[in-house]
Amino acid sequence: MPDTLPPRPLAVPLAKAYRLLNHGPTVLLSAEHGGRRNTMAAAWNMPLDFDPPKVAVVIDKAVFTRGLVEASGRFVLSLPCAAQRSLVDAVGGASGRSLDKEAAFGLRYLAGEAAPAESGGQPLVAGSVAWLACRRLPQPTIEQAHDLFLAEVEAAWADPRVFSNGRWHFDGHDALRTLHHVAGGAYFTPGTMLQG
Amino acid sequence: MPDTLPPRPLAVPLAKAYRLLNHGPTVLLSAEHGGRRNTMAAAWNMPLDFDPPKVAVVIDKAVFTRGLVEASGRFVLSLPCAAQRSLVDAVGGASGRSLDKEAAFGLRYLAGEAAPAESGGQPLVAGSVAWLACRRLPQPTIEQAHDLFLAEVEAAWADPRVFSNGRWHFDGHDALRTLHHVAGGAYFTPGTMLQG
Repeated sequence: MPDTLPPRPLAVPLAKAYRLLNHGPTVLLSAEHGGRRNTMAAAWNMPLDFDPPKVAVVIDKAVFTRGLVEASGRFVLSLPCAAQRSLVDAVGGASGRSLDKEAAFGLRYLAGEAAPAESGGQPLVAGSVAWLACRRLPQPTIEQAHDLFLAEVEAAWADPRVFSNGRWHFDGHDALRTLHHVAGGAYFTPGTMLQG
Repeated sequence: MPDTLPPRPLAVPLAKAYRLLNHGPTVLLSAEHGGRRNTMAAAWNMPLDFDPPKVAVVIDKAVFTRGLVEASGRFVLSLPCAAQRSLVDAVGGASGRSLDKEAAFGLRYLAGEAAPAESGGQPLVAGSVAWLACRRLPQPTIEQAHDLFLAEVEAAWADPRVFSNGRWHFDGHDALRTLHHVAGGAYFTPGTMLQG
């Protein structure tokens, strides 16, 4: 096996899963239903609770993925990294209603040996640096009025090169830094870590 | 006037206000009611809509500021910067129920000539780099069940040294970079900007 293959994702203890989102990364949101899967970009996400971990995320009425979330009651948040910036722009700029993003953009999901054993075939985006498998907590009123979805995180994983023991450590891995969307395809990556 | 005084905050057009939060900064949330004002730290926040701009933020039941928000129907999100890291830790680690954070930590709010003319005495934290004046959109069910508050942004301002024309530009201003909480008083600041 060439050493350029990424390591298999490692499970993140549920009580530490909020730390994957705490610093404000843009995520890819993927869902699957009836043999169809799709992925959208979602800068508007945040942790909502510690343990059990919950998240909140905005899913616009216009997006194809929303129907897959509503039908399946599940979605995966993948945290894309600097090396995936073009993929995020492409995925975020097109609709799965009219286009197969896997065929069009080379979007791939972890499968076989590369996927965590416990992920059960859920759509974890390959090449990302963390993943949260989520179960929708239906809130019809705010989903309708504000496109706001709440979910419980049932499992989480991270690339151990940049996240372990509940902490991000990007030093020496610039291509694996998370993306923080500013506007119009411009992103910050995390820079200096300040600590006490 | 010594040139170390920060420039007066400049108004951010409402349609661009979401860009203040889009990259995932930790915020300070301040509210005022009946002659009492207080400030808490809130890493869990996100934009919720573009225009009119709305935000979502988690306000725990235990925090003193929540009562001020519920009573007044308003709050201000201030974006603290690297130079304010100790202040954020102090403010986030103590309760306004038992302590006056202004006296204890040197927490200050913009006043007089330093405050934007249109801010009407609302509690904008001095030394921060952007501010969003928010009006609560009451959602009793999710406030109670999930500590989740929704609000409309009625006005926004930023320090023109680091935000103008709808974009952050931190180069040359390391002390003014936003803070992105990792865990336990460790923060990332925005590093490299990637763009197309």
